Amino acid sequence: MSEINTSVAVADLPLTRSDVLDARLRLAGRVRRTPVVRSDDLDRRAGARFWLKAENLQRGGSFKLRGALLAVERMVAAGSVGVVAQSTGNHAIAVALAARELGVTATLVLPEDAAPTKIGRIRDSGAEVILAGTVLADRIAVVESVRELRGYDVVDPYQDPDVVAGQGTATAELLEQVRSEGQRLDAVVLPVGGGSAVAGACLAAAGEHVAVVAAEPAAVPALTEALRHGQPCNVAVRPTLADGLRPDRIGALPFDTCRSSLSEVLTVEEAEIAESMYVTLTHTRLLVEPAAATALAAAMRLATAPRWQGRNIGVLLSGGNVEESLVASLLAEYTAQ
Amino acid sequence: MSEINTSVAVADLPLTRSDVLDARLRLAGRVRRTPVVRSDDLDRRAGARFWLKAENLQRGGSFKLRGALLAVERMVAAGSVGVVAQSTGNHAIAVALAARELGVTATLVLPEDAAPTKIGRIRDSGAEVILAGTVLADRIAVVESVRELRGYDVVDPYQDPDVVAGQGTATAELLEQVRSEGQRLDAVVLPVGGGSAVAGACLAAAGEHVAVVAAEPAAVPALTEALRHGQPCNVAVRPTLADGLRPDRIGALPFDTCRSSLSEVLTVEEAEIAESMYVTLTHTRLLVEPAAATALAAAMRLATAPRWQGRNIGVLLSGGNVEESLVASLLAEYTAQ
Repeated sequence: MSEINTSVAVADLPLTRSDVLDARLRLAGRVRRTPVVRSDDLDRRAGARFWLKAENLQRGGSFKLRGALLAVERMVAAGSVGVVAQSTGNHAIAVALAARELGVTATLVLPEDAAPTKIGRIRDSGAEVILAGTVLADRIAVVESVRELRGYDVVDPYQDPDVVAGQGTATAELLEQVRSEGQRLDAVVLPVGGGSAVAGACLAAAGEHVAVVAAEPAAVPALTEALRHGQPCNVAVRPTLADGLRPDRIGALPFDTCRSSLSEVLTVEEAEIAESMYVTLTHTRLLVEPAAATALAAAMRLATAPRWQGRNIGVLLSGGNVEESLVASLLAEYTAQ
Repeated sequence: MSEINTSVAVADLPLTRSDVLDARLRLAGRVRRTPVVRSDDLDRRAGARFWLKAENLQRGGSFKLRGALLAVERMVAAGSVGVVAQSTGNHAIAVALAARELGVTATLVLPEDAAPTKIGRIRDSGAEVILAGTVLADRIAVVESVRELRGYDVVDPYQDPDVVAGQGTATAELLEQVRSEGQRLDAVVLPVGGGSAVAGACLAAAGEHVAVVAAEPAAVPALTEALRHGQPCNVAVRPTLADGLRPDRIGALPFDTCRSSLSEVLTVEEAEIAESMYVTLTHTRLLVEPAAATALAAAMRLATAPRWQGRNIGVLLSGGNVEESLVASLLAEYTAQ
């Protein structure tokens, strides 16, 4: 299992802030400059000033299109005959969309319990979907066989430097958008699955005096455990609403990129994720998926600490691909209270 | 009843595009420049290019803050001891918020069946709420008595020139935001209650070659009937999801402002409003209230006509103050299908 994340050589790929800036130039006009949403209600509730980067409004419904476009573009330029990727959902949607736009065949490998909404979106893009097991190793095995049998290029969701740099453009944009309002972020909070968002954020925020805070479900503490062990390791996965944050191991490239510059890791309980989804919908009028709600829940908790009161806190609302039945049940539950 | 809308002299207040431009200057930095949201899903579904002005993300949860701030500011500058307004909800929330910010007492008069969410938001701003009957005349009577007994100034939701010019700034911003993307709107679709949004849009769009299209619930065809009779008239009100569009009569100032420049009025059935709310939530990931969904439903219908296929169509997503129970029941209904 320890070889899972080593198919791409990492040591010779030390990403820096300039890779994120290059990624922004390459992505200009190809992804949406999503809005930064404010909410007086939320700010009052938290006692801080939240700046919500609404990547749930991004094409494909999440920030993952950023990295996928760059990686697939590089592969197509190199003569790719097809691309294959594994994902719990959003990276797969993004790769399917990028492949369609760049005119290359795509196969996506998702867990058997992937959100049906996400599977539907991938099939809508004309890509092939393969469902494989429930943990990362199951999906990796299928990706490897597709690579061997068909000669497809693997778009790794955590290990590809274009992916990590691309995901960092969301935070780079957020920092710039807040500056254009005459303010400066004190912290930015991002959800952690495989780690590309938080690694990209560490690159984007380098030299900016912005604390980068990671949020992960208590049910899947892959970053917390990696930090404890000094390296990525597999963790036992308990059930979580945050289907986008279920990778049972953080990627080596994201881990190496963020380990020394991360400010804090907060683990979020399931009840906090659920309440945060509800609050985001009713107070900010944005539909977000549980992964994004995990980041906002962590930001709400962060804001209770005296040092963060009244500060400017950015939050990556990473995506909006959520099962309608989950939203319906949350509304029913909280409305009844 | 025919005197209801004549408390402000209209004839000598011929609003023009420059009033909207002045309003924009006065509002700069005081209201949010709300984002214009795109949705590939929605565009594909409709065969047109939609530009959704997300005023559900405005402070107070609707575009009505724009006009309210200007009108209350004028009254405070003239030495007001308090302001009073009637509304089905959003104008009242906006006046309460404006009054709090400008340091003046406010009383708001709503129908007895007003949305509890809206009543809650008004009370949260520290304003007084009075519930009166279910039709416009009931509320007008209470407003008049508050004006006489307490000397409060009336912030009329339809007749105040600052309100109409202020509401027009939402459309003016939308036109500018689309231009900044190198595009030009061919049409803009707005919901009609008392008529301030559509009147403001006619002013903002003057000389721009943009068709202004009004959308009203078939259950409350106040603009359709006013156009048929050549003047505002009271209509019978059937039940509608669109609580924000229930005024049973269009305002005289909005009617005079828009009657000659409106391109089209579309009436929207209740089932279309419900489906449109659901589609907006799940396809654009924005929570909107039924009034906003009414405009989007009309825009979807408009786009089916050959002349609008592939065109750029703006939609005012007027607000997001919606009962959670309604959203829950819509999700349950459509998810089950």
